[in-house]
Amino acid sequence: MKASDVRCVALSGGIGGAKLAVGLSKVLAPGELLVVANTGDDFEHLGLNVCPDIDTLTYTLAGINDPETGWGRAGETWNFMAALEAIGGETWFRLGDGDLALHVERTRRLASGESLEAITADVARQLGVEHRIVPMSDDRVRTIVETADGDLAFQEYFVRQGCGPRVSGFRFDGAVAARPSPALLDALARPALEAVVICPSNPFISIDPIVALPALREALGACHAPVVAISPIVGGAALKGPTAKIMGELGLPVTAAAVAGHYGALLDGFLVDATDVTDASNEPAIEVAPAHVVMDSLEDRVRLAAEALDFARRLARQTAPVKRRGRLI
Amino acid sequence: MKASDVRCVALSGGIGGAKLAVGLSKVLAPGELLVVANTGDDFEHLGLNVCPDIDTLTYTLAGINDPETGWGRAGETWNFMAALEAIGGETWFRLGDGDLALHVERTRRLASGESLEAITADVARQLGVEHRIVPMSDDRVRTIVETADGDLAFQEYFVRQGCGPRVSGFRFDGAVAARPSPALLDALARPALEAVVICPSNPFISIDPIVALPALREALGACHAPVVAISPIVGGAALKGPTAKIMGELGLPVTAAAVAGHYGALLDGFLVDATDVTDASNEPAIEVAPAHVVMDSLEDRVRLAAEALDFARRLARQTAPVKRRGRLI
Repeated sequence: MKASDVRCVALSGGIGGAKLAVGLSKVLAPGELLVVANTGDDFEHLGLNVCPDIDTLTYTLAGINDPETGWGRAGETWNFMAALEAIGGETWFRLGDGDLALHVERTRRLASGESLEAITADVARQLGVEHRIVPMSDDRVRTIVETADGDLAFQEYFVRQGCGPRVSGFRFDGAVAARPSPALLDALARPALEAVVICPSNPFISIDPIVALPALREALGACHAPVVAISPIVGGAALKGPTAKIMGELGLPVTAAAVAGHYGALLDGFLVDATDVTDASNEPAIEVAPAHVVMDSLEDRVRLAAEALDFARRLARQTAPVKRRGRLI
Repeated sequence: MKASDVRCVALSGGIGGAKLAVGLSKVLAPGELLVVANTGDDFEHLGLNVCPDIDTLTYTLAGINDPETGWGRAGETWNFMAALEAIGGETWFRLGDGDLALHVERTRRLASGESLEAITADVARQLGVEHRIVPMSDDRVRTIVETADGDLAFQEYFVRQGCGPRVSGFRFDGAVAARPSPALLDALARPALEAVVICPSNPFISIDPIVALPALREALGACHAPVVAISPIVGGAALKGPTAKIMGELGLPVTAAAVAGHYGALLDGFLVDATDVTDASNEPAIEVAPAHVVMDSLEDRVRLAAEALDFARRLARQTAPVKRRGRLI
């Protein structure tokens, strides 16, 4: 498969995004899907380069993820953490024994000069993942959470403090200078592309770091294929994680409509739960459609993936490309 | 306990030395023993700083070593290695899940500017080791094995190639410039010191890297306390490891006498198995005495440790310090 055959680009954070990525991987051939991972929550921990969203996508698409937690590996053991604790090391971020191999090997390969994209592709291949996962950029981008307690590195906020501090905003250090993945820019520019799917990830901490890259935002604006998001809010509550808490702290109503408003001109279409259709339809430039956005089973994931692709194809037929190119912001 | 209270300095490699170190730790109070670890076989692997002899000493003195292998931790698990293999990483050097914590944490702390000696001391303390273990130097020394196949980094020779290549010599890169542990130099200069014990480790790869440090060799020559070695050769065979193979390749007879000849002016006394006494006594400047040098049980270790200390005390009484200072080379 050539890069020119990519039919769907999916922008994804970790757990929620990975569920949809699995669905997309079941309805698209390996060369037809490019999953783009947020790297804003990457960090250096214990001297290791940890990339939580890349790894969640990789493990999930490889079918070796922990189905209970959503992150990490199934059947994981924790002897490293126990031994680390015994010698006084930091244990607030849990690294499983098997998971650790990926961080150690990635850190070694990065230090030897390999790119994050090349390492990510090779690791996925070794684990039997046939579809492509690319980090949004090989350049360093770091999500900083602006809170009532001051600025916090993302994992400090998210894991160590359990999303406790009240959020006033986010910024993405390094995003302005970061160059998007060339494979991603190439896919966005090709005529074969049918859809850009924004997974039902947290808009503020999973998707915003991706679309904060100026060259990527520009490429999305210029892209002929419709951009379709799936709501992470259903009936006034978040599907998972701190999305609802963050929206409240940012002064936003916890609604699908507020998510649509947040994405704004980026979107052509928005898939929401049937109960949220009326509510979300007050964004006149965005086409809203109902879907089963809750993904409890593999069947749910596959169905939602197919619905997202069908929705994008429908939008492509009914909307002139010139209108969509107008979303360039 | 103050540094001035050190009564015994023990120079040690890994497994064999650690057995005697345990014995010494049972007959000496914590402040009375300073165990000096060879760092010539330290190396960087997978981007981690691995110090095999320090770690074997630490785990053994902490009582958490694997009694089967002699190295690593009891009850170790290997999920890291399995996961590393699955993503194509190097697996010829086995790092257990629990063991890995030490390498990761040490690497992080070294990168943050802490000294190897400080990290080693702190880790040992956290693991409940009461006696002191010091690396021979905080400076980098690397044993290079000169073989018929060319120069090999130590672990390449020792682990990866299983000591297969024929050895023509050893050198210790960095040794000439390396500064010995200040605690070690201090202990050697104090009147309280009663013995320097060279453990029954491999002379060529465990002890030579230590005594290759010029300032340490000078301090040993000037030290008032007797230097006593324990033979790693019993009845023409090595207690363990590749010592016999190496001696043969270097053109030496596999005898305790050849070990004494190799150490030469460094030694005041040499403890050998009873069957080796006559053989070893052809080094006129070295006092030879019989001992039970095979350490199968904890009782053996304690008895040999006590014998080594008694031997040193006897030598101190019967030999004028001025004679021993003549060993300065």
